[in-house]
Amino acid sequence: MKKSPSQSRRHFLQKAALGGVIAGTISLPLLANTDKLELPDSLPKWMREPGGDFSNYGEPSSHEQRIIRWISANPAAPGNGISWTPLHDLQGTITPNGLHFERHHNGVPQIDPAQHVLLIDGLVDTPLSFDIKSLMRYPMTSRTCFIECGGNSNSGWRTNPIQSKAGYAHGLVSNAEWTGIPLKLLLEEAGIKPDVKWVIAEGADAAALNISIPLDKLLDDALLALYQNGERLRPENGYPMRLVLPGWEGILNVKWLRQLRLVKEPIMSRDETSQYTELMTDGTARQFTFVNEAKSLITSPSIGMMLPDNPGIYQITGLAWSGRGKITRVEISADGGDSWVDAELQGPILDKAFTRFNLPWHWQGDYSILQSRATDETGYVQPTRETLIKNRGKHGFFHYNAIVSWEITEEGDINHVYGF
Amino acid sequence: MKKSPSQSRRHFLQKAALGGVIAGTISLPLLANTDKLELPDSLPKWMREPGGDFSNYGEPSSHEQRIIRWISANPAAPGNGISWTPLHDLQGTITPNGLHFERHHNGVPQIDPAQHVLLIDGLVDTPLSFDIKSLMRYPMTSRTCFIECGGNSNSGWRTNPIQSKAGYAHGLVSNAEWTGIPLKLLLEEAGIKPDVKWVIAEGADAAALNISIPLDKLLDDALLALYQNGERLRPENGYPMRLVLPGWEGILNVKWLRQLRLVKEPIMSRDETSQYTELMTDGTARQFTFVNEAKSLITSPSIGMMLPDNPGIYQITGLAWSGRGKITRVEISADGGDSWVDAELQGPILDKAFTRFNLPWHWQGDYSILQSRATDETGYVQPTRETLIKNRGKHGFFHYNAIVSWEITEEGDINHVYGF
Repeated sequence: MKKSPSQSRRHFLQKAALGGVIAGTISLPLLANTDKLELPDSLPKWMREPGGDFSNYGEPSSHEQRIIRWISANPAAPGNGISWTPLHDLQGTITPNGLHFERHHNGVPQIDPAQHVLLIDGLVDTPLSFDIKSLMRYPMTSRTCFIECGGNSNSGWRTNPIQSKAGYAHGLVSNAEWTGIPLKLLLEEAGIKPDVKWVIAEGADAAALNISIPLDKLLDDALLALYQNGERLRPENGYPMRLVLPGWEGILNVKWLRQLRLVKEPIMSRDETSQYTELMTDGTARQFTFVNEAKSLITSPSIGMMLPDNPGIYQITGLAWSGRGKITRVEISADGGDSWVDAELQGPILDKAFTRFNLPWHWQGDYSILQSRATDETGYVQPTRETLIKNRGKHGFFHYNAIVSWEITEEGDINHVYGF
Repeated sequence: MKKSPSQSRRHFLQKAALGGVIAGTISLPLLANTDKLELPDSLPKWMREPGGDFSNYGEPSSHEQRIIRWISANPAAPGNGISWTPLHDLQGTITPNGLHFERHHNGVPQIDPAQHVLLIDGLVDTPLSFDIKSLMRYPMTSRTCFIECGGNSNSGWRTNPIQSKAGYAHGLVSNAEWTGIPLKLLLEEAGIKPDVKWVIAEGADAAALNISIPLDKLLDDALLALYQNGERLRPENGYPMRLVLPGWEGILNVKWLRQLRLVKEPIMSRDETSQYTELMTDGTARQFTFVNEAKSLITSPSIGMMLPDNPGIYQITGLAWSGRGKITRVEISADGGDSWVDAELQGPILDKAFTRFNLPWHWQGDYSILQSRATDETGYVQPTRETLIKNRGKHGFFHYNAIVSWEITEEGDINHVYGF
């Protein structure tokens, strides 16, 4: 096929710069088809008969039924497990509610909102209880932020690189517009006694999950969330109400919230002692590591996909996020970290929220290692796996945020690899 | 119940200013309950037995099944109709995909994406066709914007004010994060001949809906959208691909897009001549009125709700949007437009997207008329119904954007009224 590149085409190619190669001067096959240039003689079936009905509540296309949360639950302890957001199949920055990751300790309680009450007690001037009806009358605000399980990506500590799809190894993180009441309003209405430093949050699931949260965070930017992406929370995300603590690990964003008890000291519950702590190189354990540090992931191309054209132009795209603030930079390497090029960050760039990055890449057909590296507004740079293990040891389980490496073979296959 | 207001309480009340009344000095009953101050003796059912299973794709709570799109389809012409987004039941700014409004002319086609092709032809250098697989390799970008049917709110032209819920009279508008390919890239790849001014877009539904769009808009900010709120488009929103023309009336955002034909003149199709045009006071019809002008709606309190406390504090909240750019101001009146107070606009304020506004209101228990009035960055101010009718006549059908009035009776009931 012969065609001189149009102006837009040249522009498109000039941006395909990575590893020092400017692709703008190279003539490449179009992705579009120029052979089938007329609409088909016979109309497709769906243009020859009336379409389907309206629906009160929509569903994805039946052709997209493979786009699912992947469930990793323990058959020996039903209801204790996780389900992963398929980040490799998604685009943009919002995670649709049906695909927000799940982490349950004893299944999804089916709560009757008319019977659910939130109690604020402990070291307060006046203990208060709130039903849904009264909460609906408080001032609300919305905030788009990610929630990430402290255990996300922890297969990175395994000796051999896991060969799961990107979302099924790193998708215990999702991003939504949460709407609810600033916790500060409710706590100050109860009246906080002077020596309060911690708040014990408890959920109304059968695990009665409870955990200690520093008061300061609740007074800062925490929400009692009632809505997720515009509609009421889904049961698996805490219906009828949950905590949202922007940038702090998932376990603290207590779902099905039923109690906030103001106290002086943390409760030392199971999920802040034997779990959600980190064994360090010297044998001690790091505790109360709340913040999810800067991280990024190339969602496409990624493991399980393949590159059909050799050589060819591909759009590198992915997500970056930081519990410390805004993402300021994402760099991409195609040579395992020897050289880096800045990706384009898609706006609006929001605090403690998914930021999508994009970079066109002209793959020359040679062996490549694709990596992304995030920097946040505090200057924190996402570490290599080598650095992470050097600082944190080989027996970690929580807060794994190292750079992920996708190996591109000369055949265009994609594998997960270590060591770059 | 006696309790001196805490600091936060006072702060909360001080913001409750409307109609010249500052509520900060008034002691009011708390919304919280101080009587039931202990957790119940017996745990609720959902804490005594393991919860439900994980799910591959989530659903709303069974307790929220009344939150639906309301369907107004014509039984005589199945598949021709609308379904309304329940704006009065939603919060934040994102419309979840299951509740995005629908407008179909011949039902929802069930398209096999493997058989669907987009053709770009007409006055181009090289006609091109694109299948999904090739489109997935183009650069994509995301943009959060509203789409509004040109016929939204048109019950406002009726002689008597319609007593439907807010979303079921004004909810042919929804707001989503759309991700897709800038149309400019695809059109310029085909090569645009110098005298092209219009593009005829056709959908692959049984109506083969077609309509003329100015080339300039497609080169400006139009997307060929493939994703909606992170996941692939839903069938009722154009799966596998649709046009998104930020700020322009819904009919132009052609769903199930199968052809873009570049031409010199508009095609004068049914939906730009006998429909989606506006009969003016002098008997002529306005045509090609593409932009949805600034508009706002108080979603709560709104018709069908009621105010239980008399007097009481209520959070006025709602949505504003403009097809011309960003919303810069929303004013609220409680006295039918005699006096106005600025509402707080919730950030980030995005171009041609829903902007939520909030204002606490201390209702004194007297007869009130609540109104909201939006201004956009061009300085355009949402008109009263009187002004709209004066300028556009009484027989309009499209682009109704007048101020909406909710009457609050002394009993706390809410009705839709005219004349203020």
